[in-house]
Amino acid sequence: MAVIGSDRGLLYGDGVFRTFRRGSSGIWDREAQYALLAKDCAALAIEPPAQAELDGAIASASAACAYPEQVIRVTVTRGIGPRGYRPPVGVQPSLYVSAGPAPELRAWDAGYTLRVCELRLGYQPRLAGTKHLNRLENVLARAEWDDPAIDDGVLLGQSGEVVESTMGNLFWHSGDTVFTPALNRAGVSGRQRARILDALRREGANVVIGHFSLGSLTTAAEVWVCNSVIGLRAVTSIDGRAFPAGSVAQRLASSLFCDWQPQQR
Amino acid sequence: MAVIGSDRGLLYGDGVFRTFRRGSSGIWDREAQYALLAKDCAALAIEPPAQAELDGAIASASAACAYPEQVIRVTVTRGIGPRGYRPPVGVQPSLYVSAGPAPELRAWDAGYTLRVCELRLGYQPRLAGTKHLNRLENVLARAEWDDPAIDDGVLLGQSGEVVESTMGNLFWHSGDTVFTPALNRAGVSGRQRARILDALRREGANVVIGHFSLGSLTTAAEVWVCNSVIGLRAVTSIDGRAFPAGSVAQRLASSLFCDWQPQQR
Repeated sequence: MAVIGSDRGLLYGDGVFRTFRRGSSGIWDREAQYALLAKDCAALAIEPPAQAELDGAIASASAACAYPEQVIRVTVTRGIGPRGYRPPVGVQPSLYVSAGPAPELRAWDAGYTLRVCELRLGYQPRLAGTKHLNRLENVLARAEWDDPAIDDGVLLGQSGEVVESTMGNLFWHSGDTVFTPALNRAGVSGRQRARILDALRREGANVVIGHFSLGSLTTAAEVWVCNSVIGLRAVTSIDGRAFPAGSVAQRLASSLFCDWQPQQR
Repeated sequence: MAVIGSDRGLLYGDGVFRTFRRGSSGIWDREAQYALLAKDCAALAIEPPAQAELDGAIASASAACAYPEQVIRVTVTRGIGPRGYRPPVGVQPSLYVSAGPAPELRAWDAGYTLRVCELRLGYQPRLAGTKHLNRLENVLARAEWDDPAIDDGVLLGQSGEVVESTMGNLFWHSGDTVFTPALNRAGVSGRQRARILDALRREGANVVIGHFSLGSLTTAAEVWVCNSVIGLRAVTSIDGRAFPAGSVAQRLASSLFCDWQPQQR
């Protein structure tokens, strides 16, 4: 058996990953992304890779990729250990970095279509927020549709509350309030979610983080989704219900993602 | 990046595994174990390996292992596909087989010490029962203790009900009834659990499968644990509370696991 078959990342999903975009000027938000990866590692008591090691592995993977705009995925696992769930002590974590072509960056208001997934996320407070390798729920949810016109799916928690999308974090705006789901029971805490929350707080916006029903989302004035590959995108449809690309998302796109926009805009 | 880093087993835990014991006369309960692996694959819509392929891979791994009594782990992943949660269509599943030394088989009543884990299992009905690769909960639970005198940990569900142990399934006997947890929300449905349930039903025992409190377990007359590596073992202690090795477990050990016992008995 190849050594890799002994990696606890494969055996148990015992590790974490982050995915980010690399343009001609490097990785967007690199230091914060590394910090988030280190935080994820800490949640599983895995030693994070040193910055120099990470830089080197990313540079190698990136150089081997022919595309100028890249998606970089960094995976850190607990490493190789003896059989059994017990985390081995003193083993070297494994680092896997891949680089592939990034999806084309589209304008924040270019349209983004969601459906609501049937699969409901389970609750595990010990893992919530962390981007760990146990992602079968996302795989099963993403397997629910084939229609290429649907960009992403809304994931609800076991109680029916909105948690995230399969690939990103969700925000919506109703009245004078911006809503985004709490990620203390399920979901992944993304870097762009944190940036958007910081920006909203700086401008004194009324932001509520909590557990909200699907109705709260689908009756919103505007909805947007974010992740570190596509940036911020206004959601224009959820299960056929239309939403306008609104002023709050536009303001955030301008202030936080202006250099993420396609150049022709 | 090595090809393995692209395996969805590593990327997302997108796969299943089973672990079993191989003695001088081959794999115990081989056909049923293969059937269970195929059932797990079906739960994730992964094509199971053909029996000949599985036999060959196990024979190779086994031959490369110097120990006569072996633990065989068979891992099947969805295979290698493009980036993203969406399960690729038409890809070849990956098969990883490892063989290592089996723990010494001990008598059913040789003593088995449990503790109750703090981590509580989340509920995911779509995955419950299946031995998939998303096993971080088991890893975190097993990380709770270092004491080598503790053999295994009791895992409770989010509501505090007994689900399983970190490495096996649990049964207990109170009055005239045998109890074992339902695995429709969390937990792994093991082959030996099924064998024991079949045997109990054949003998007309009063068996209840459901969601039971920790108190139901800790006030039982006898408790036993089972898996396909250690067979059946009477639990003699849970968090310091002593249990006798009782007559029901003895009867099951004699009828189902007689050829699993150490030869000196």
